[in-house]
Amino acid sequence: MPQVGIFMGSISDEDTMRPCTEVLDTLGITYHFTVSSAHRTPERTEQLIDSLEKDGCQVFICAAGMAAHLAGAVAARTLKPVLGVPVTASKLGGMDALLATVMMPPGYPVGTVALDKAGAKNAGWLAAQIIALQDPAVAQKLAAARAEFKEQVIRGAEELEARMAAK
Amino acid sequence: MPQVGIFMGSISDEDTMRPCTEVLDTLGITYHFTVSSAHRTPERTEQLIDSLEKDGCQVFICAAGMAAHLAGAVAARTLKPVLGVPVTASKLGGMDALLATVMMPPGYPVGTVALDKAGAKNAGWLAAQIIALQDPAVAQKLAAARAEFKEQVIRGAEELEARMAAK
Amino acid sequence: MPQVGIFMGSISDEDTMRPCTEVLDTLGITYHFTVSSAHRTPERTEQLIDSLEKDGCQVFICAAGMAAHLAGAVAARTLKPVLGVPVTASKLGGMDALLATVMMPPGYPVGTVALDKAGAKNAGWLAAQIIALQDPAVAQKLAAARAEFKEQVIRGAEELEARMAAK
Amino acid sequence: MPQVGIFMGSISDEDTMRPCTEVLDTLGITYHFTVSSAHRTPERTEQLIDSLEKDGCQVFICAAGMAAHLAGAVAARTLKPVLGVPVTASKLGGMDALLATVMMPPGYPVGTVALDKAGAKNAGWLAAQIIALQDPAVAQKLAAARAEFKEQVIRGAEELEARMAAK
Amino acid sequence: MPQVGIFMGSISDEDTMRPCTEVLDTLGITYHFTVSSAHRTPERTEQLIDSLEKDGCQVFICAAGMAAHLAGAVAARTLKPVLGVPVTASKLGGMDALLATVMMPPGYPVGTVALDKAGAKNAGWLAAQIIALQDPAVAQKLAAARAEFKEQVIRGAEELEARMAAK
Amino acid sequence: MPQVGIFMGSISDEDTMRPCTEVLDTLGITYHFTVSSAHRTPERTEQLIDSLEKDGCQVFICAAGMAAHLAGAVAARTLKPVLGVPVTASKLGGMDALLATVMMPPGYPVGTVALDKAGAKNAGWLAAQIIALQDPAVAQKLAAARAEFKEQVIRGAEELEARMAAK
Amino acid sequence: MPQVGIFMGSISDEDTMRPCTEVLDTLGITYHFTVSSAHRTPERTEQLIDSLEKDGCQVFICAAGMAAHLAGAVAARTLKPVLGVPVTASKLGGMDALLATVMMPPGYPVGTVALDKAGAKNAGWLAAQIIALQDPAVAQKLAAARAEFKEQVIRGAEELEARMAAK
Amino acid sequence: MPQVGIFMGSISDEDTMRPCTEVLDTLGITYHFTVSSAHRTPERTEQLIDSLEKDGCQVFICAAGMAAHLAGAVAARTLKPVLGVPVTASKLGGMDALLATVMMPPGYPVGTVALDKAGAKNAGWLAAQIIALQDPAVAQKLAAARAEFKEQVIRGAEELEARMAAK
Repeated sequence: MPQVGIFMGSISDEDTMRPCTEVLDTLGITYHFTVSSAHRTPERTEQLIDSLEKDGCQVFICAAGMAAHLAGAVAARTLKPVLGVPVTASKLGGMDALLATVMMPPGYPVGTVALDKAGAKNAGWLAAQIIALQDPAVAQKLAAARAEFKEQVIRGAEELEARMAAK
Repeated sequence: MPQVGIFMGSISDEDTMRPCTEVLDTLGITYHFTVSSAHRTPERTEQLIDSLEKDGCQVFICAAGMAAHLAGAVAARTLKPVLGVPVTASKLGGMDALLATVMMPPGYPVGTVALDKAGAKNAGWLAAQIIALQDPAVAQKLAAARAEFKEQVIRGAEELEARMAAK
Repeated sequence: MPQVGIFMGSISDEDTMRPCTEVLDTLGITYHFTVSSAHRTPERTEQLIDSLEKDGCQVFICAAGMAAHLAGAVAARTLKPVLGVPVTASKLGGMDALLATVMMPPGYPVGTVALDKAGAKNAGWLAAQIIALQDPAVAQKLAAARAEFKEQVIRGAEELEARMAAK
Repeated sequence: MPQVGIFMGSISDEDTMRPCTEVLDTLGITYHFTVSSAHRTPERTEQLIDSLEKDGCQVFICAAGMAAHLAGAVAARTLKPVLGVPVTASKLGGMDALLATVMMPPGYPVGTVALDKAGAKNAGWLAAQIIALQDPAVAQKLAAARAEFKEQVIRGAEELEARMAAK
Repeated sequence: MPQVGIFMGSISDEDTMRPCTEVLDTLGITYHFTVSSAHRTPERTEQLIDSLEKDGCQVFICAAGMAAHLAGAVAARTLKPVLGVPVTASKLGGMDALLATVMMPPGYPVGTVALDKAGAKNAGWLAAQIIALQDPAVAQKLAAARAEFKEQVIRGAEELEARMAAK
Repeated sequence: MPQVGIFMGSISDEDTMRPCTEVLDTLGITYHFTVSSAHRTPERTEQLIDSLEKDGCQVFICAAGMAAHLAGAVAARTLKPVLGVPVTASKLGGMDALLATVMMPPGYPVGTVALDKAGAKNAGWLAAQIIALQDPAVAQKLAAARAEFKEQVIRGAEELEARMAAK
Repeated sequence: MPQVGIFMGSISDEDTMRPCTEVLDTLGITYHFTVSSAHRTPERTEQLIDSLEKDGCQVFICAAGMAAHLAGAVAARTLKPVLGVPVTASKLGGMDALLATVMMPPGYPVGTVALDKAGAKNAGWLAAQIIALQDPAVAQKLAAARAEFKEQVIRGAEELEARMAAK
Repeated sequence: MPQVGIFMGSISDEDTMRPCTEVLDTLGITYHFTVSSAHRTPERTEQLIDSLEKDGCQVFICAAGMAAHLAGAVAARTLKPVLGVPVTASKLGGMDALLATVMMPPGYPVGTVALDKAGAKNAGWLAAQIIALQDPAVAQKLAAARAEFKEQVIRGAEELEARMAAK
C-alpha cells in the first residue's frame, strides 16, 4: 500500500530522484517508484494514478525535464496533491522545466520544488509533511530529522571554527 | 479554528491574494488571513505560526514579492506543509519572487505555485487538496468544482462554435 | 470537413488567435476553431482529436499560455503535425509558454511559432504551407499573399521616401 | 529524389544533427543533408532550395546556432514548410538560437523544435509527420515507432520496479 | 549621395528610428532612410545595398524586432560596416531582437547598439564616428555635440542643486 | 558637510531617487544630491568625488540605468563605500542595470540594492547603517524607524483581520 | 574581538568564501567565520548576531546559494550593514541566489556583490572600506592594495607588449 | 603606427582575444594590443587612448567580462568608433558582460559584437571594415577572406555529401 506515487518522465531521471526515495525510506513512508510519460504512455499514466489512488496513495511526486508536462498531466487526473520536481535536461539551466512545472492554470496546482536533486529531496520532505498531518509517527521522524540537520550545521561550524583557531 | 494560515508579506498583496480566500470560501475551508513579514515582524511571524498550529492549522500559504523570503521563513519554523505564491512586485516579471520562493534547500520545502492571482487561486486549491485527504466533504466539493471547470470550457466552446457557425 | 483543428486552452485566447483564422479564411482553408483544455477537459481534447482526424483534419494548431501543455498533450495523441502558439498570460513575457511549448521530448514534436498574434498568424501560414503540399490552389494563394507582402513593403518604402523627400 | 532538405549553418553542427538523419533513415524517408550558410553562402542556399524543390523536396530542416538566421533565410525563399533546430553554440544556453529561430515575423513561419539533439530528432519526426499526410507507409512506421517508445517506457518501468522489489 | 543607408524591417519601426535620422541631420550627414525586409523583400534589400554602395554609402544601419535578421542579412551582402538596432516588438523585452542581432558568426559582424530609441540615436552616432574618420567637419560637430551633452548634465545638476538648496 | 554623496546618471532618475533623500532626511543625515554621468561628465564626476571626500563625505550612492557604469566608475575613484541603485530604463526589466552594477571585478565593490524606488530607499538605509557605526544618534533613529515598520505591519494586519471578521 | 561576522549557509560554500577571509587577513581585519543557516539554525543565527554585535562586530557578510535567504534573515535582525555574496548552487547560473539576495524590501538592505569568488573578495573589500571610515590604518592598506592592483595591470601589459614585440 | 587599439580588462582575457589579433594580422592591419582596466588603471586607459589617437589609431576594440565597463569608459573618452567584445567571466553565461557592453546611453555608442572568441574575431573584422573605407587594400583582403569562407562551406558540404553518398 504505497503512500506516495513517484513518477519520472524518463528512466534517465533515476539518479536525480534517488534522494527522494532515500528521504521517504528514512521517514518510513511507502511509495511506488516508476517511470511513466505524459506523452509516450498517457494511458499508463492514467491507469497508474487510478490504481495507486485505489491502493491508498496520498501524494504524487512527478519529475520531468524540458517541457515538463508530467506533473501537470497527473494534476489533471487526480485530486490528490501533486508535487513537481523540475529536472535540468537541456542547456537552458532548468528554466524550461521549472516554468513548465510551476506555471499551472487555476484549479490544477502543482506544488513545485527546487531543480534537480535538491528538489527531489524536498519533494520527499513535502510529501512526508503532508502525510504527517495524519500520521504522528512521521511527524516525529520529521522533527528528529530537522534536529539532526541543525546538529550537522553546528558540527560543521565547530569544525570550521576549530580549523580557523588552529591557523 | 482555521485550517489554513495565509500570510502576506505586505498589505499591498491583498488584491493578489483575494482569489485564494475565495477558493477556500467556496470549498468551505476556514482560514486566518493576515499580514506578517519575514523581515519586519519575524517574532510575530513565529508567534502566529505557533498559535495557528495550536489551533489546528494544517497548511500555511505565504505570498511575497521581490526577494520573497516569507514562505521560506515560515517553512523553517513549522513542519506543516508550506505553499508559496510568488508575487510580481518589481520590473523583473516576477522571476525574482519565483526563484526566491521555489529554490529552497533540502529539508525546508515550499510547494510553489504560479505567479500572482493564478498562483493565489492554486495555493487555495492545493491547500484544499491536502485537507481533503482527511475530509471527504472537501474532496467532494473539489470534484464538483472540477466538473464545473469542465462545464465552463464546454460552454465556452459551444458559444464560440455557435458564433463561428453564424458567420 | 475541417482541414485544420485549432484549439485554445482558454476562451480568453480568442483575440490572440483571430489572426490565425483570418489567415486560413484568406487562404480558403477550412478549420474547426474551439476551446479545449489539456487539464480541464483532457477527455474532450482526445475525443476532438479523434473526431477531427476522422473528418480529414491534417494539422492541429494549439494555443496556450503559462505552463502551456495543450500542444504537447495533442502531440501525444495524434500523428498529424501539431503547431504550437505560445501565449503571454503571465508577467514572465511569454517565456513560460514558449519553453513549455517548444522543448518537447523526442518523438512528440510541436512545431512552435512566435508568441501571441504574430505566432497565431504564422501558425495559420505554416498549416497552409503543409496543406499546400497536396493542394496546388493553396500553394498559389500562398504565393500571391507573399507577393502582396512584398508590395506592402515597397508601398511603405515609397511613402516614407516621398515624405523624406518632401521635407 | 530527396523528400527532406537538411541544412546546417556549419559543419560543426553535424553531430548535433545525426539524430535527425537517423530518424529519417528509420522511417524510410530520403533526404539531402548538407552545409549551407545564410551569411557565408546565401546564393548557394537559394540555389539548393530551388534545386531541391524541383527534385520534389517537401520539407526543409535548418539547424543553426547563435543568431540563428538560417531557417528564417530559407523560410523567406520557399513556400514549403521549414523546421528549425536551434543549436547551443555560445555560453547563453541556446537562448540566442532559440529566439532567433522561433520569433519569425508574420508570413514567414519556422516550425521550431527543441534545442540540440532532442530538437534534431524532433525535426526529423515532424518532417515525417508532414510527409505521412501523403504517404500511408510513413504513417504506419510512425505509429510503430510510437508503440516502441511506449514499450521502452514500460520496459524501463518494469526493470526499475524489479530492482526496487529486489531491495 | 547618401553616406548612410538606414533600413527598417517594417514601417512600424519609423518612430523608433526617428532619433537616428535626427542625429544624422544634426551632424550634417546624408542618408537614405527606407523600409526593406530580410524576409519579405530579400532581392530589394540586395539591390538597395548594391545601389547605395555605388552611390558612396559608407555605413548601413538596420533596425528590426523579434528574430531580427535584417542587420545580419545586410552584413552578409556588403563589406561596409553594418550597425544593428534591436527593436522591442514582442513581450520578451527586446531580448529576442538583441540576441538575433548581436550574436553573429565570425566574418559577418553587426556592430550592435542598445535597444529601441536609445539605440537608434547611438547607431546614428556610431555611423557619424565612422564617417568622421574621413571627414574633419563631422568630427568637429561630434565634439561640439559632446560638449553640449556635458553642458546639459551640468545645467541639470545646477537646477537640481538650486532646488535642493531652496528647500 | 554632506555625509553622503548621491549621484544620478541622468536628471530623469530624480523621481526614482526621491525615496533615498527622504530616508536620509528622516534619519537626519546630510547629503549632496546631484547629477553626474560616468560617460558625459567623467571629469566632473572625479572632481565631485574628490571635493565631497574632502568635505567629509562617508558614503557614495549612485543610480543609473541600462549599462549602468556610474557606480563602478565612482568605485574606481574612491575608497569610501559605494552603493549602487540599478534603475529600469529599458524594456529589459532592469536586468541590464542590475548586472552592470553588481557584477564588479575584485577590489572595486559596489554594494548593490534592489531595482528602482525600493532600491533607492534601501541605499539610503544602508548608507545610514554605515554612518550609524560612528553615530549613535543615527543608530537610535534607525531602531525607531524599524519599530515603526513593525507597527505598520501590525496595524495593517489588524485592519485586515477586522475587515475579515466583519464579513 | 571580530570586526566582521562571516556566515555561510552551508559548509560547502567554504571554498567560495576563502577569498573573502584572505582579503580580510591581508588588510589586518579580524573576523568570525562560521556556518549558520537561515532555515536550519535560525536561533543560532540570531544568537550569533547578538553575540557578535556585543563583541564589537561592525559588518556582516553572508554567503548563500539558491533561494539565498541568509543575508536577508541577518539584515532583519541587525542594524549593522549586511553584505551578501550570492553563490551559484544550482544550474540557474546563480540568478536565483543573486535575485534572492539583492531584491530586499525597503528598510532591510543587503549590499550585494558579484557572484561566487569575485563577490567573496569584494565583500571583504567592501567590509574593509566600511571599517576604514573609522580606522586610518585600514584605509592605508586599502590604498596600498589598489596601487598594487594597478601595478599588476601594468606588469601584465608590459609582459604582453614584450611578447607581442618579440613576435 | 597602430591602426587599432585593443584593450582587455584583464590579462586573463588574452586567449579569448587571440582570434581578434589573428584576423588583423591576416588582413595586414596594425594594432596595439594591451591590458588596461576601467577600474584599476583609469588614468592609464585615458593616456593610452590619447597616445594611440595621436599615433593615428582609427578604431578601439575593448574586451571585458562581468560588469564590462571598459568599452563604455573608452567610448566616453574618444570620438573614434569603439567596438566591444563581451567576455563570459561568471556563471551567468555572459549575459552580464553583454548587457553592460551594449546598453550604452545616447551619444556614447559601443558597437557590440558576439560573446567570447566569435566576438573577438568579429571585432577584428568590423574594425577592418571600418578601416577599409579608406584603404582599398584592406577592402580587397576582406573580399578575398569572404570568398575563402564561402569555399570552406562548400568544401565542408562536399565532404559531407561524399561521406553520405559512401554510406
